[in-house]
Amino acid sequence: MKIALAQIDYHIGNFDGNLQKMLERVEQAKALGADIVCFGELATCGYPPRDFLEFDDFIRRSYASIDALKKASRGIGIVVGSPSRNPVIEGKDLYNSAYFLYDGAELGVQHKTLLPTYDIFDEYRYFEPATAFKTVSFKGKKIALSVCEDIWNVGNENPLYTICPLDEMMAEKPDFILNISASPFSYDHANVRIHTVRANVERYNIPLFYTNHVGAQTDIVFDGGSIVMSPDGRVFDEMPYFEECLRVYDLDEVVRGGKTNEQPKDKIKLIHDALVVGIRDYFGKLGFKKAILGLSGGIDSAVTAVLAAKALGQDNVRVLLMPSQFSSDHSVNDARQLAVNLGMQYDILPIQPMFEAFETALQAQFAGMPFNVTEENIQARIRGTLLMAMSNKFGHILLNTTNKSEMAVGYGTLYGDMCGGISVLGDVYKTEVYALAKFLNKDAEVIPVNSIEKPPSAELRPNQKDSDSLPEYDILDKILYQYIEERKGPRTLVEMGFEESLVARVLRMVNMNEFKREQAAPVLRVSKKGFGMGRRVPIVGKYLS
Amino acid sequence: MKIALAQIDYHIGNFDGNLQKMLERVEQAKALGADIVCFGELATCGYPPRDFLEFDDFIRRSYASIDALKKASRGIGIVVGSPSRNPVIEGKDLYNSAYFLYDGAELGVQHKTLLPTYDIFDEYRYFEPATAFKTVSFKGKKIALSVCEDIWNVGNENPLYTICPLDEMMAEKPDFILNISASPFSYDHANVRIHTVRANVERYNIPLFYTNHVGAQTDIVFDGGSIVMSPDGRVFDEMPYFEECLRVYDLDEVVRGGKTNEQPKDKIKLIHDALVVGIRDYFGKLGFKKAILGLSGGIDSAVTAVLAAKALGQDNVRVLLMPSQFSSDHSVNDARQLAVNLGMQYDILPIQPMFEAFETALQAQFAGMPFNVTEENIQARIRGTLLMAMSNKFGHILLNTTNKSEMAVGYGTLYGDMCGGISVLGDVYKTEVYALAKFLNKDAEVIPVNSIEKPPSAELRPNQKDSDSLPEYDILDKILYQYIEERKGPRTLVEMGFEESLVARVLRMVNMNEFKREQAAPVLRVSKKGFGMGRRVPIVGKYLS
Repeated sequence: MKIALAQIDYHIGNFDGNLQKMLERVEQAKALGADIVCFGELATCGYPPRDFLEFDDFIRRSYASIDALKKASRGIGIVVGSPSRNPVIEGKDLYNSAYFLYDGAELGVQHKTLLPTYDIFDEYRYFEPATAFKTVSFKGKKIALSVCEDIWNVGNENPLYTICPLDEMMAEKPDFILNISASPFSYDHANVRIHTVRANVERYNIPLFYTNHVGAQTDIVFDGGSIVMSPDGRVFDEMPYFEECLRVYDLDEVVRGGKTNEQPKDKIKLIHDALVVGIRDYFGKLGFKKAILGLSGGIDSAVTAVLAAKALGQDNVRVLLMPSQFSSDHSVNDARQLAVNLGMQYDILPIQPMFEAFETALQAQFAGMPFNVTEENIQARIRGTLLMAMSNKFGHILLNTTNKSEMAVGYGTLYGDMCGGISVLGDVYKTEVYALAKFLNKDAEVIPVNSIEKPPSAELRPNQKDSDSLPEYDILDKILYQYIEERKGPRTLVEMGFEESLVARVLRMVNMNEFKREQAAPVLRVSKKGFGMGRRVPIVGKYLS
Repeated sequence: MKIALAQIDYHIGNFDGNLQKMLERVEQAKALGADIVCFGELATCGYPPRDFLEFDDFIRRSYASIDALKKASRGIGIVVGSPSRNPVIEGKDLYNSAYFLYDGAELGVQHKTLLPTYDIFDEYRYFEPATAFKTVSFKGKKIALSVCEDIWNVGNENPLYTICPLDEMMAEKPDFILNISASPFSYDHANVRIHTVRANVERYNIPLFYTNHVGAQTDIVFDGGSIVMSPDGRVFDEMPYFEECLRVYDLDEVVRGGKTNEQPKDKIKLIHDALVVGIRDYFGKLGFKKAILGLSGGIDSAVTAVLAAKALGQDNVRVLLMPSQFSSDHSVNDARQLAVNLGMQYDILPIQPMFEAFETALQAQFAGMPFNVTEENIQARIRGTLLMAMSNKFGHILLNTTNKSEMAVGYGTLYGDMCGGISVLGDVYKTEVYALAKFLNKDAEVIPVNSIEKPPSAELRPNQKDSDSLPEYDILDKILYQYIEERKGPRTLVEMGFEESLVARVLRMVNMNEFKREQAAPVLRVSKKGFGMGRRVPIVGKYLS
């Protein structure tokens, strides 16, 4: 028996586009002699569809795609995820289902049991869990069909859940497991995924075929990396990351095992690739081609510009240099050098005339009051307005260049440097931005080394340095990581050796600035805990603030 | 037996503040001879605590409050909601629990069974549902303790759920039901709440005591309206809306019934009161006193200003009039008249000098291109920058004045008129804003009648009217209501009689502008479906867009 796995870049709500891609793969799989072709979780409608699921019309269109695939299933088994209606009145209206279609009929439908409802996931908001578990019989084989999370409670060892659907299916002695997933990328996830697939294979002693989505849906990036694992626990094949791919596997060969093909897993390379895909798909799926961003001469905007050039092509990225009276010559020079290195169109728009116009307008109101963060913010907002003006006039999307460290502590101006359609680095700590810059410069000095080596500064007042207001990034990022990703509280952080008053100060900065993040651009998620839907914190909360 | 219900304005994460309020009510209830005093759901930590629940430290502090209340329970039963740890490894780590404390001990703990995971609610993200149901025996009575949603599946008639926890408890023949809730306001919710309480009373034929939160937590407003219902199905008492309150009830009298006291339920009055509380608590809970907003001479900013004056006092609200070259004289006059009527400090800051500075700066880039939405947006962003500058300099919070109709169709400038800490009218359709204006003017012409009667316009280009780009609000609001609140899809809307191309156009505007709402200020929620956490729609989705 030959099994094709297809990892595809689906698009939420784009039923025609998703169906077209799948129909093409069905033909391709047939041509390659496959008996079965597997698509992803909720492949008809894209993932995560969120509240679109509450529209009857949306569900009807999902069913229409299933019907079309059914018609295309002459001579080939098609495994595909789609929402399905719960016929029972009690409980949620929908199931998250895996269909097995063949020769114009449904051979089986297995609903998802374990409904992730944490981090970015809200599945229990929409779906009823399965209570029935049945294998599908096809060409003399019994197949355990499963959807994503359902293989993530092997032997009931995941503390989140109380049931293990695969255990239930084993009474029927399936020959192999098919898992259709929509499992988002984070830079440390690929190993966990392989570990989990292996735990299943070791427990049940049968092969497992796992297929994932690729591509980004706003903030959430899918990396693919679909897996075939032999009963010997080896990764028979791991598909490439961040690329669409279709491959056909011979079941007997997989059962025999002994073969290994894994993808390399370098953290910074993975983050890099995820961000490039994240930018590309944000533009592509919204129907935009061109980006704009501000270049300050600093490292964050430099890294963002290089990533944008890789994602969209240098001709599709335009940059503005917007020096203030406090900008140093070297900043403008570094920014210009970067634009030249990248071959990007750049404009230099000094902001002083507009700043003076604002100062004059507010003269009476501000009389006798010293220059402070207000004037810093005015400058940042003038830049935001200039960038948005270019974006509006020429149909660009503005890329936000704020990094995760700044976003965490609120070191940025709302409606100023926080503007943008998508935040490229908002899930990348400053120390990781440095590593990305070195990675981008590994073959040639694309980013001027001066941008990397000089002390970070917003240049909004004379001789300003980030370290005037913030702890050094080396230590700050460690505290932030433990607080945000690992959810360690103040007491634990102090026990870990961080200085008590510093911990209190950092946590207070994070919690006081929830209101800024509420209005931030969506952030390309590359860690296991990014800002946005995956992290839900009350604004008026008085906890640690 | 005497039962005190306390409806309190809790504050998320403010353990000391919440505890202090409850301890005061314990003393008050004792002084009034109460045997039991009841507080709200998750009263120790406030509701909704969201991801704060993932911090051990947060849970430890909740337990510390329970310990303190236990000590205070000499001679009085205290019923209070708090998160509690699930001792079993499998399943979610926490329960959402109702404690019954008395004489320094726990007489009982009942966990919540039905975990709302829809709209603004994410309870299954954090909590394991209860599987055990036991009444509490106290002074010869058996009490069925329940938490909020657990009375919302009477006779298993709610399609969301498959179990009815109260049914389970009835085997023990309780004498009455105590329900501790955190049930947010929407203008049509009070009747539903009474209906639900009555359905329980009729099914079980015993009295029900229901206590709710009051006050706002960022976007979510709690209206109180705690209910005591006699077995005869009459509302023995309904506490006031939007006010803290403690009242003591004699159980025998409640059982006897025959008495009725309900609150009036006028939609516009309720919305008005909710918005005033929403503003007041946003400022109070963040520790701010002063608001700023822009007055355009139009109805939205006028209504917002009056509500702000009511919430914070006229001396704490400052307004800016920022006419452009396209502003009509009457707009400035109407705005000034309103400020005078309200006795507010106002400044007039014409934006033309700044607009000219931007035009000059962008002259080369925009050469030969006509005036379009770009220049309109620049003006809106200059206003946003001026307002934020004042806010930064003087420690105001900027109030956003965008209404729900505009927010829905994206008729507003991101980083311009969409700026603000909190959106006052973002859940109030334009047609409802008119009704609010009339309500505010019922005793005197506070809002100049011209602001109410003239055709709406953004005045960002010559002779602009909202109706140039949008359908008339009468019809637009009806379509929006059906699509947003009632989740009717395009086919259903056409079946309802709306014109097909208009439906397609409106739905497309709504869905294309998801990216703007993603970066909008939190919106005070007054309807059953507001923008924000209660409505989760993918930005890059290609559905109906």
